[in-house]
Amino acid sequence: MNGLSEPAEIRAAIRRGDYAGPTAGLAPEFVQTNLVVVPSDAAGDMADLCARNPVPCALIEKLPVGRFHPECAPDADLRTDLPKYRVYRKGLLLEKRTDILDLWHEDFVAFLIGCSYTFEDALVSAGFSMRHHAEGKSVPMYRTSLRLMPAGRLWGHMIVSMRPFKPEDVETVRELTRPYRAAHGEPVHWGDPDAIGIRRLEQPDEGDPVTIERGEVPVFWGCGVTPQNVAIESRLPYVIVHEPGHMFVTDMHHQELARDDARTASRP
Amino acid sequence: MNGLSEPAEIRAAIRRGDYAGPTAGLAPEFVQTNLVVVPSDAAGDMADLCARNPVPCALIEKLPVGRFHPECAPDADLRTDLPKYRVYRKGLLLEKRTDILDLWHEDFVAFLIGCSYTFEDALVSAGFSMRHHAEGKSVPMYRTSLRLMPAGRLWGHMIVSMRPFKPEDVETVRELTRPYRAAHGEPVHWGDPDAIGIRRLEQPDEGDPVTIERGEVPVFWGCGVTPQNVAIESRLPYVIVHEPGHMFVTDMHHQELARDDARTASRP
Repeated sequence: MNGLSEPAEIRAAIRRGDYAGPTAGLAPEFVQTNLVVVPSDAAGDMADLCARNPVPCALIEKLPVGRFHPECAPDADLRTDLPKYRVYRKGLLLEKRTDILDLWHEDFVAFLIGCSYTFEDALVSAGFSMRHHAEGKSVPMYRTSLRLMPAGRLWGHMIVSMRPFKPEDVETVRELTRPYRAAHGEPVHWGDPDAIGIRRLEQPDEGDPVTIERGEVPVFWGCGVTPQNVAIESRLPYVIVHEPGHMFVTDMHHQELARDDARTASRP
Repeated sequence: MNGLSEPAEIRAAIRRGDYAGPTAGLAPEFVQTNLVVVPSDAAGDMADLCARNPVPCALIEKLPVGRFHPECAPDADLRTDLPKYRVYRKGLLLEKRTDILDLWHEDFVAFLIGCSYTFEDALVSAGFSMRHHAEGKSVPMYRTSLRLMPAGRLWGHMIVSMRPFKPEDVETVRELTRPYRAAHGEPVHWGDPDAIGIRRLEQPDEGDPVTIERGEVPVFWGCGVTPQNVAIESRLPYVIVHEPGHMFVTDMHHQELARDDARTASRP
C-alpha cells in the first residue's frame, strides 16, 4: 500500500483484492470507522445501543435500509471496501471473508462507528508515541466488566483498547482525546486493570500484547469492537462486522469529528 | 396546587412561594426536568458528562452562560420556579433553599436533564400502576456500582430509580419506555439488585421505600439525580441542583421527547 495516501485509492486497492491487511497508518489524516451490519429488524435495537452507549459505540453514520454507499465516502462500497469481514450467527463466528457481495441483502442496515485511529492521530501530532506502533503491533483490546446500557435484545459488556502512558502524561492524554467524542473521546479508565475486570494485560482478547515499561500505567478507551461482543453475548441471529484493525477508510478528516460545542448546546 | 394544570400557573405558584412540595402528578402531560447549575469553568465537563452518559444524564437543554430563561419554557425563571434547590460545595451539601435569586451569578451555566415522570406517564397511559403513586410516596432511588464514563474532573456512579413489576410485564415495560431516550429510555437493569451494587432495597438513598409484592421484580432506570452524586463523588467546587422529586415543569409535551428515528439517522 506504499504510496497510497488517498482514501479512494486505498478503498479501490482493497476492492480489487490487492490489499487485505490492517488499515492502521493508511491515509492517516482521514477518519476510519468500525462496521456493523444487521438485518433491518435489529436496526432499531442497534441504533438504541449506540445512542445509549456513545463512548464505545459513537455513531458516525447509520445508512438507510439496503444502502452500502455511505455519506462519509459516497463512492465507496461497504460490501467490498474493507480488507476483512467477520460473519456471526447466533453469537458464533461463522466465517471470515474479504468481501460480502454475495451475502448482502436489500434488508441489511449498515452502521459506521468511530475508531480510535482518530484520537491516536491527535496524540501522535502532539508528540506522543503509541506503543503498538513502535512495536509494529495491533492495539491490544480487552473484554471488561463494564456493563453496557441494554437496548432491546442487545446487551453485553464493553471492549476497551489500551495504550500505556506515564502517569504524569495522563491528564494531557485525556485532554487531547476528549474533543473526539465521535471517536471514543477521553479514556474510560486508567491504572488498575482489575477495577474494570481485566485480569491479564499480557493476554488481550483481540489485537496484540504490548510492553508496559516500568512506571507506566495502562490507559483504557472505549472500543468500536464492542458491538461484536454484544452480538456474541446477546446471541444476535445475524451480524456482519469488520475484522478488528481492518477498518473502513472514509473521506472525512479527523477534525470533522472534533467536538463542536455549538451542536451540543441544543436539544439532542 | 389543586386546579393548576398549566405549567405556567404551576411555576407562578412556586415562584410566589405558594408551593414548595414535590412536583409528581402536576401538569402530567408536560415534561419535567432535573436541574444542574455549575460555574462556567465546569460547564464543558458537565456537557461531556451528559454526552458520555446519556442514559442517566440525557440533556434536554444547556443554557447559554448566565441565562435562566430556558427555551423549553421561555417565560420561566430557573432561579425561582423549582420548589426546592440544593447547594453543594466540594461535595458537601451546604444548604437547601426555595429560590437561588441571591446566589445566581452571571457566570453560571444551567443544564436541564430528562426525568422519569415522562416515561411514567407512558406507563400509566398503558394501564400500569406505579407502586410509589399507589403508596403516596416518592420513587425510591439508589446509588449503584455502575461506573459512569468520566468527563474531565467529573466521575462517579449512576443513581437509579426503581419500580416493581411482574416478570411477565418487563418486556412490555421496556418497550413502552424505550422511545423516551431523553428521559432515561428503557431500564438499565431488572432483577437482582446486588448485580448493580444495591444491597438493601428497603433503604433507598433518596426517595421512599416501596412495597415489592411476592412474585414481582425490581426494575431499575437511570436517574437524573446522578449529577448530584457526581458532584459529591468528584468534590465539584460548586453546584446547585434541584431537590430530588422537586422538578422543573417545562412547556414541552412528553411526546416531543419520544424518539425521532430520523434525527438519529444522521451524524451525531
